[in-house]
This record gives sequence, structure tokens and C-alpha cells, in this order.
Amino acid sequence: MESKTLQFARRGRRLIGQEMFKVLERAKKIERYGQRVYHLELGNSSFPPPSTVIQTTIESLSNGHLGYVPSSGHPDLRAALAQHYAEGGRPWITEKYFVISPANLLINQVLDMTCNEGDVLVVFTPAFPTYIAAAEYIGLTLKAIALESEKGYHLTKQAIDQAVALKPKALIINSANNPTGAVYTHSSLEYLIQQCDRYGIWVLSDETYADLCYRWPYWSLSALEYRQLIVLSSFSKYYAIPGYRTGYALAHPTVASKLSLSCSTLFSCLPLFTQEGCVAALKVGESYLQEVCDHYSYITEHCAEIINQSGVLTCSVPEAAFYLFIDITQTKLSDHEFCRRLLQEWHTAVTPGSSFGPGLEKYVRVSVSGQKEDVLEGIRRLVEFSLHCKDGRPWLSSADTTPLRKVSHAV
Amino acid sequence: MESKTLQFARRGRRLIGQEMFKVLERAKKIERYGQRVYHLELGNSSFPPPSTVIQTTIESLSNGHLGYVPSSGHPDLRAALAQHYAEGGRPWITEKYFVISPANLLINQVLDMTCNEGDVLVVFTPAFPTYIAAAEYIGLTLKAIALESEKGYHLTKQAIDQAVALKPKALIINSANNPTGAVYTHSSLEYLIQQCDRYGIWVLSDETYADLCYRWPYWSLSALEYRQLIVLSSFSKYYAIPGYRTGYALAHPTVASKLSLSCSTLFSCLPLFTQEGCVAALKVGESYLQEVCDHYSYITEHCAEIINQSGVLTCSVPEAAFYLFIDITQTKLSDHEFCRRLLQEWHTAVTPGSSFGPGLEKYVRVSVSGQKEDVLEGIRRLVEFSLHCKDGRPWLSSADTTPLRKVSHAV
Repeated sequence: MESKTLQFARRGRRLIGQEMFKVLERAKKIERYGQRVYHLELGNSSFPPPSTVIQTTIESLSNGHLGYVPSSGHPDLRAALAQHYAEGGRPWITEKYFVISPANLLINQVLDMTCNEGDVLVVFTPAFPTYIAAAEYIGLTLKAIALESEKGYHLTKQAIDQAVALKPKALIINSANNPTGAVYTHSSLEYLIQQCDRYGIWVLSDETYADLCYRWPYWSLSALEYRQLIVLSSFSKYYAIPGYRTGYALAHPTVASKLSLSCSTLFSCLPLFTQEGCVAALKVGESYLQEVCDHYSYITEHCAEIINQSGVLTCSVPEAAFYLFIDITQTKLSDHEFCRRLLQEWHTAVTPGSSFGPGLEKYVRVSVSGQKEDVLEGIRRLVEFSLHCKDGRPWLSSADTTPLRKVSHAV
Repeated sequence: MESKTLQFARRGRRLIGQEMFKVLERAKKIERYGQRVYHLELGNSSFPPPSTVIQTTIESLSNGHLGYVPSSGHPDLRAALAQHYAEGGRPWITEKYFVISPANLLINQVLDMTCNEGDVLVVFTPAFPTYIAAAEYIGLTLKAIALESEKGYHLTKQAIDQAVALKPKALIINSANNPTGAVYTHSSLEYLIQQCDRYGIWVLSDETYADLCYRWPYWSLSALEYRQLIVLSSFSKYYAIPGYRTGYALAHPTVASKLSLSCSTLFSCLPLFTQEGCVAALKVGESYLQEVCDHYSYITEHCAEIINQSGVLTCSVPEAAFYLFIDITQTKLSDHEFCRRLLQEWHTAVTPGSSFGPGLEKYVRVSVSGQKEDVLEGIRRLVEFSLHCKDGRPWLSSADTTPLRKVSHAV
């Protein structure tokens, strides 16, 4: 009983996924041959999460908190978030503004709720790959507005005017930015909302890395009461629990209750025990959080210095988060070729730049969120490989300077 | 900066969610006033899960397994599933056939991958509410084929012929059935696939309750190699861990890899620690599983007997799972009015029948998956309330026969 050809629907045909997960899958295959791989492809923090988060989750599991909870999220977590934001000077924000859902899924949920197939979506590039994958999947007309590396990838008035002139149905903004680490100014964001309000444009503000802004105070769009604004964030990055897959949306209650119906339709609800862990996360003291920021501030600056002194690679120094967006032009390789060979020959996993938008084939993204020693070894390999490429020498000629064996049968 | 009206996209306007989660939310509001509620609205098992599942999850958390895993799922879990199915006499099934995702989300993923807006989807009713909510959300033309209570809600050749004649793009089959507890025969399912193969119809076989089939051996569609078949299942029900939100799809590798891209696009991956718990679940011995089945076999039969001897309510005796689909015609109330009043006045939560398909306003679904004592008390209240309704007496006249106080300010 074999059918002839499999006919997928339009959405089925438009699925592209996230490139970094494809890189992870390739890396895992190499690891299955017993070969160590340096993982710089994903924002997988190796910083230990606050012990109360894990302890609370374990207690919740031990106490049998294994059932369903309301689709909008565990009431205690929504209340804790409301308190968190109210304390931050936004007293009008109540628990009705919050919906608990994985942050990556929220990107899809928000776009599907606000845009029809064919509608224009604006993103500022370099942009997080899921924006592009979700737009493609849903069938949106994606318009990418390139931010300039010379301007530190900052959001300019000109870029905003350009975006609004495209009359998009929705627009995604991501400060602090993945992959560039740029943090947008209060005035640029306020101008953005003014313009969007004028034209009735939905705004999705992805603030996943807001709390990892270590160079100056962060300004969140949640300070503005714009009904077509959805702020999204996650517990993954700040509290080092990406595996919890727990994030949230903050939006006007009318929008939030739509999102809650979306959660109910799509996945019923999230686990209670992870949500209870997140309640504990919101009570974690400043000292842990300061330590996290200090660490990422140090490691990003240090790695950027190595990159920029390499004589072959260049990058901006991030203002937030834990990524470096690295220009590989001098290696004369395309991003995919670069990543493929770096993984296969140097067992170091990084993500191709073109996943972050059109015209970025001369970049790769490196995550420095892992264990310091591993990150530094990965960066060393990245630089050595790049130097070999620049010099035009095959890497095998310098094989004796590195402890690696080529794994030819794995990838 | 208030916009005038919020303009949602078509999908945003078509969100209806799952009725039982709305009931849960109403019940939680009553509980916040300190009032006990008997929860018969959701399939929330109170049967203790195998201790190794919880223990393994806790160890995984303690060992810092908090990062990302491949979008298709934890390789060990996919391998364990392949072994599980291969041992069940389907040796061609390898790990490439599996994708790990929440079962409820998989319904949406599969429909979105196989059907375009406007395409016909056939479901046999009574049907699990998410089929209806997902179809509505995606914009499918839903055709419901009613199975007859007189025939124990079994799938007949006539119903299959009727379904195929509608030339649907896809069809959902759910044996063992939620809410009716009906289990379909090998011959009817084989005939269904023959007919679908003839017309190139996608088949989603929801086998979430397959292992809770306690009256006779279950026949799974996974025995057939039909490339347009996606079997979906969950760890929630059998292992009593609905809060893990972990399920899986079993499909031809071409279809599975599409689903994996869908996971990557939508939610990146599921937690590693819950997936490691599920690996442990697949190793749980027969005695636990027998105990679970014995319990549900007993409680469903016992509760069905109470219902059918009540003189006001009737239901079929389920062949599987832990739901009763109860005819409330004699109460002269619509399902929504019945559920609203039963919750408000008798603090007992059940789900309106109309959530399970058109023409089912004279039914409610009751889940008997909770603690035995609570279930029996809930059933007692259901019967008493129904008798009051049948007799036409207002419930307050019999308030002294029950320990309840009316919570008028809560709902």
C-alpha cells in the first residue's frame, strides 16, 4: 500500500526550520563516533541556573504536580510576572496581560493571529532565524531591512521610516538583538511605536535578551501602552534554563486572551513543574543576576578582542546577550561551506550567517554561552581554521598543531 | 496611544480553544474562594506515575540536562520508541519514523502540513475537541460523520464510505476514542486505510488511549505501511504524566522529517529531562501497566453502572480510556447550562457535549481519571443534580441533603 507521491499542503512545503538545530543534529552525529565537539551554534547557557529554580521544580515533581493547568499559564506565574513588571514601574500591568508559552512558539502564534497569508512582515536584519522560518511557513511577504554593521547594527530613524513605508501588517523588533548584541535606544523605540500606531501596525517586541544587557540600562517597550504591541520574553537565557522551554507574552488583555485561546488550541497548557520553577526564578536575588551579566560582559568582550586581533575575522563588540556575529569575508568561503568544514575538520559548531537574513553569506554566528574553556577552545579553532583558509593552505598541513583527527565517516 | 479597533487576522478570529480548559479556568476561580471542586472535566490521571519516571526526570534535572536537543526529539527516546514498536511486531519501524512533540500540538502540525485553508477534513463524532478547534483555526471545511450510540459508537463500513465519498484531504481517526471509549476493529481500520489509499487521503490516527484498552487486544494502525498515515500518541495517559506534555508521531521518514522541521520552526525542541523521563517510562514493567488498566476498567464500569441506574442519565460502557459520554436529555437542560449550573451549584466540573461535535448538546463528558473517592463523589453530585433537574425542583429545596454552600460571587 504505497502511495505514489506525497502531496503536502503549502505550509508543509514551506517548512525550513532553524539552521542551528540542523547544525546541532550534525554535531550530535559526530559525537556519536566518540569525537568531542565544541558547541558554539546554540545559545545553550552553561552558567549554572539558580539552585532554587531546580530545587523548586524537583519538589513540584516530587509532590505530584503532574496535571493540567489553565492554558494561559499557571496563575502564580502570571501573578509573579505582573508583580515583577509592576515593580519595574508599570503598575497598570496585571496578570491578565500575561500568557505563558514557549517564546519560539509565541513568534508563530503572534504572527498567525495578526497576519494573513500574503501580508507584509518587516524584520530588521540580521534577525533571529525563527522570524524568517515562521514568515515563510505562514506565507507572509517578508521584507528585510538591513541594519548597518558600521552603525553597530543600531535601529535608526531612517530604518524605521523605511519599515513603515512598506505598510506592513506587522513588524518584529528584537532588542537586545540576537545575533548582533545591539541594544536599541529609548528614543528610537518610542519613535517606532509612534509610527506604527499611526498606521495600525502590529509590533512584536522580542525581549528575550533584555536582562542580559550589561553595558547600560535596558529600555523595554512594555513601558508603552500600545494595544497592538506584544512583548515576548523567556526564562531560558537569563536563568540558564533553555531546556525548560518556558517563555511568556505581555500584551493588552484583549490580545492576551486571544493568545490564551491559541495556547489552548495548539498545546493545551505547559507543564506545571517547570512553571513553578519559573516562579522561583523571579525571586532570585540581584547577586546571581549581576554575576551572569558580569560573566557575559567579560566573555563577549574577550572573545570579540580575539576575533578582531586575529587578522582574518572581525565583529562588533556586543552590548548584550552572548553572541558574536562574525565577518568571514577574508576566508573566501561562503557561510555554509565555512560552517560545514569547521564542524567536519575542526569539530567546532557555528551557525551560517545567511540564516539571519538575506545578504549575510559572509557572516557566521558564534554563541559564547558555553563553558569558558570550551568557548575559548572553539574560538581558537575558528580563528586557526580561518587563517588557514585565508592563506589558502589546506588544513591538513597544520594538523600537527592541533590534537584533532578527521572524522570522515560521520557527517 | 490607544488604537481604535484591534484587527486580528483570519486565524486570530477563528480561535475557539478547548472547552474543557475554559471549564478548568472557571473551576480554579471557585477554588480561589476556598471552595473544593470535584474535577471531572479533564483527563488528569491521579494514578501515581511509575516512580522511575519521576526519579529519572529528577536525576536529569539534577545533572543539569537543561539545554537544547534536536528538534525531532532526544535520540534515546526515538530509539526506545523504535524498539518498543519493533518488539510489537513492526520491525521496519526505525527511529527515523518518530518525532517527539506534544500530542495536542501534533494535531495542528499534521493538519497544517497536509491541508490548505478550505480543504475538507473528516472527523467521526463524538470527536476530541482539538480536532474541531484546529480545523476551525486553520480554516478547514470540517465534515462530521456521526457514529451512533446504539452501535456503541463503533466505526462502520457505512461511516467509512460516507467519509471517503466526501473526498477529504485528510481524515482523523481516534481509537480508542475520547470521549466514547469505543475501540475500532482491525477489519474496519484496514478497510478505512484501503479506501484512503485509493483516493490519496491523509490519515491522522490518534492512538493516545491505545494502551488503556482493557476489554480486548488493541489493533494499532502502525501495523500498516501507508505513507499518508501519521500515528500519534502520548505519554500522558498511560503513564499518568499529562503535565509532561510529551507525545510523539510515528510516520514514514519523509513525513517524519517534515514534522521535525515543523517542530524546529514552531518550538525548537522539547525539554531533555521530560524526554529522559519518557525513556524510563518505556521500560516500565507489565505489572504497573496491568494495574492501570485494571483500575480504569473497574472505575469506568462501576461509574457507568451508577449512571445507568440513576433513572435520569444514560451512557455506554467504555471499552477503553477513562471517560463517560453521558446523555442528559431527561434533565431538559442544554449541555452548557447543565455544566454551568453543576459547577456553580454542585462544584462539580464536567465538559459540555457540544464541544465534541455538532448535535451533541444533549451530552456531557465526564472524566473518571481522578482519585476514586473524588470521582465517586463527583458522580453522586452529577446524578443528584440531574434528578433535581428532571423533577423540575429548584436545587435549593434540597440544599439540606448536601454539604454545599453556593458560591455566588465567584463564577
